[in-house]
Amino acid sequence: MSDVLIGVDLGGTNIKSAAVSRDGRVLGKDSRPTEAELGLEGVLKNIDASVRSVLEKAGIPFQDVIAAGVGAPGPMNWQTGVVFSPPNLPGWKDVPLADLLSQRWHVPCFVDNDANVACYGEFWLGAGREVDSMVLLTLGTGVGGGIVVMGQLLRGPDGTAGEIGHLCVSRGGRQCNCGAKGCLETYASVTGMVRTALEGIQQGENTILKEMCGGDYSGLTGKMISDAAAAGDEFALWVVQETGKWLGTAIGSLINLLNPEKVVLSGGMIAAGDLLFAPLRETALRQSFEVPGKRAMIVPAALDPDSGVIGAAGCALERLNKDS
Amino acid sequence: MSDVLIGVDLGGTNIKSAAVSRDGRVLGKDSRPTEAELGLEGVLKNIDASVRSVLEKAGIPFQDVIAAGVGAPGPMNWQTGVVFSPPNLPGWKDVPLADLLSQRWHVPCFVDNDANVACYGEFWLGAGREVDSMVLLTLGTGVGGGIVVMGQLLRGPDGTAGEIGHLCVSRGGRQCNCGAKGCLETYASVTGMVRTALEGIQQGENTILKEMCGGDYSGLTGKMISDAAAAGDEFALWVVQETGKWLGTAIGSLINLLNPEKVVLSGGMIAAGDLLFAPLRETALRQSFEVPGKRAMIVPAALDPDSGVIGAAGCALERLNKDS
Repeated sequence: MSDVLIGVDLGGTNIKSAAVSRDGRVLGKDSRPTEAELGLEGVLKNIDASVRSVLEKAGIPFQDVIAAGVGAPGPMNWQTGVVFSPPNLPGWKDVPLADLLSQRWHVPCFVDNDANVACYGEFWLGAGREVDSMVLLTLGTGVGGGIVVMGQLLRGPDGTAGEIGHLCVSRGGRQCNCGAKGCLETYASVTGMVRTALEGIQQGENTILKEMCGGDYSGLTGKMISDAAAAGDEFALWVVQETGKWLGTAIGSLINLLNPEKVVLSGGMIAAGDLLFAPLRETALRQSFEVPGKRAMIVPAALDPDSGVIGAAGCALERLNKDS
Repeated sequence: MSDVLIGVDLGGTNIKSAAVSRDGRVLGKDSRPTEAELGLEGVLKNIDASVRSVLEKAGIPFQDVIAAGVGAPGPMNWQTGVVFSPPNLPGWKDVPLADLLSQRWHVPCFVDNDANVACYGEFWLGAGREVDSMVLLTLGTGVGGGIVVMGQLLRGPDGTAGEIGHLCVSRGGRQCNCGAKGCLETYASVTGMVRTALEGIQQGENTILKEMCGGDYSGLTGKMISDAAAAGDEFALWVVQETGKWLGTAIGSLINLLNPEKVVLSGGMIAAGDLLFAPLRETALRQSFEVPGKRAMIVPAALDPDSGVIGAAGCALERLNKDS
């Protein structure tokens, strides 16, 4: 097996690696703790160990690797591969990550935004593999996103394109961590959904959520809300539907703006299934023009939770091809 | 002069034409009434007469024309050049406009959305000529738009991409003609600005607008509001600022989503200058991430009102190059 791509998904909690063939077969995977508290040198060692473990287990010599791609959090310069100062990687400041790994591995290394590589993964080998344009929304603590148009990942000059979580869906609405108000993330992330529930509970809504979190609402999770909704709790169902409507509102805007063929959703929240997707799709259709609204298929991710690590390998191949 | 491009901006009221050289020199222009009431055949004759007049005045023989582009209103299939049924061109239904003109002129003809060609015009020869990515917002009766990313006009599979006026900026907000709620257009078009003023007046705001429209608010125009604001009327100033804030909110979202180098505004409303641009820029910066927010220059259009007719010629050249 020659022509192997390495993908790395660098998170604050876990490092994931994968080896992927040029034609998109996943040859091996690994996941291990990032140990961010060890600082830059320690994390680099963990990345290296994770990648070498994947190759060894798959029986791939390092000389078969033609390029490596890393999906990294926080702001960066994707052209130079310098990662600025990711909030969940303490001690990192202007780290020339692509160069450091390239020196270590003697192959071209490329760094991209983590949500963007996840989008590219779905585009290359997942839910968007047969289309030319798609958007990805990752629903977690925040809302991440990525955009592919005209067959290409949209990075933008600063690599910040695709911040779908920071589309304003309600001018003057909820305060967002980013400093703006009314961002989608404040309503449609897991955190936003919990906030919607807590606001309702404060207004005296009746719900089994109280029992589920043992009377201590600080322990309320997105999963509890989904479970309560699935169990028929009317208030929890309303919260899930409301979250779906916020998402549908933003997706309607994305459809009008980008005319994508697919809208792909990932993250634990999508386990809620039709309870979330039905109001989401209905709202997206109502909030978009008829022709592009019908065009855009709204579907769950196909590779989740490996969209990122596979997409990092795919981005490396794409950038290697562009450079040559 | 060989290698001439023809551009046509087909509106419900006026037809504009231009002849543009391959390297972007405007060789001649014409504008005349569309006479939409004459129906398809009459409008085609007017388009033909307008184009022939431009060429004749500029002393260009028709055999020097290598391609023609038309910016047309309403939904269409840009790949086939079929215009469906533009609301302001009565009697038009599934008109194969590109083929009809191509048969008449014996040159390749291309049809695109009118706001998209205006965006391409600014990108090719106007405010966006030195950048790789920009968005255009046209502020008129409605809010139109266009997007260029990675050096290419974003059309989308249905040609409907770039509908910036139908970005939702307020979930559940004002009812839009498109059927959705809270679209930017309902707040930031001239019509939206007038509506904001009328709502305030109904609530008893004091303003010189009453005198300006002779006591009959049905005659209230955007220009009256801008003029009153420039003359120091506090309420009118608030209305203009509020319009700027709605625009800034949407532009902040566009910056987070697309990381564009330029945001270009056109239409009569931008004559309000800093009264509009100051709150608009401030809001856009607050509603976007710092790096892409500082990157995006928010500027007036450079070719307005000829962005469309020049862009139509530019799109023809772009598509001719792609086809060959």
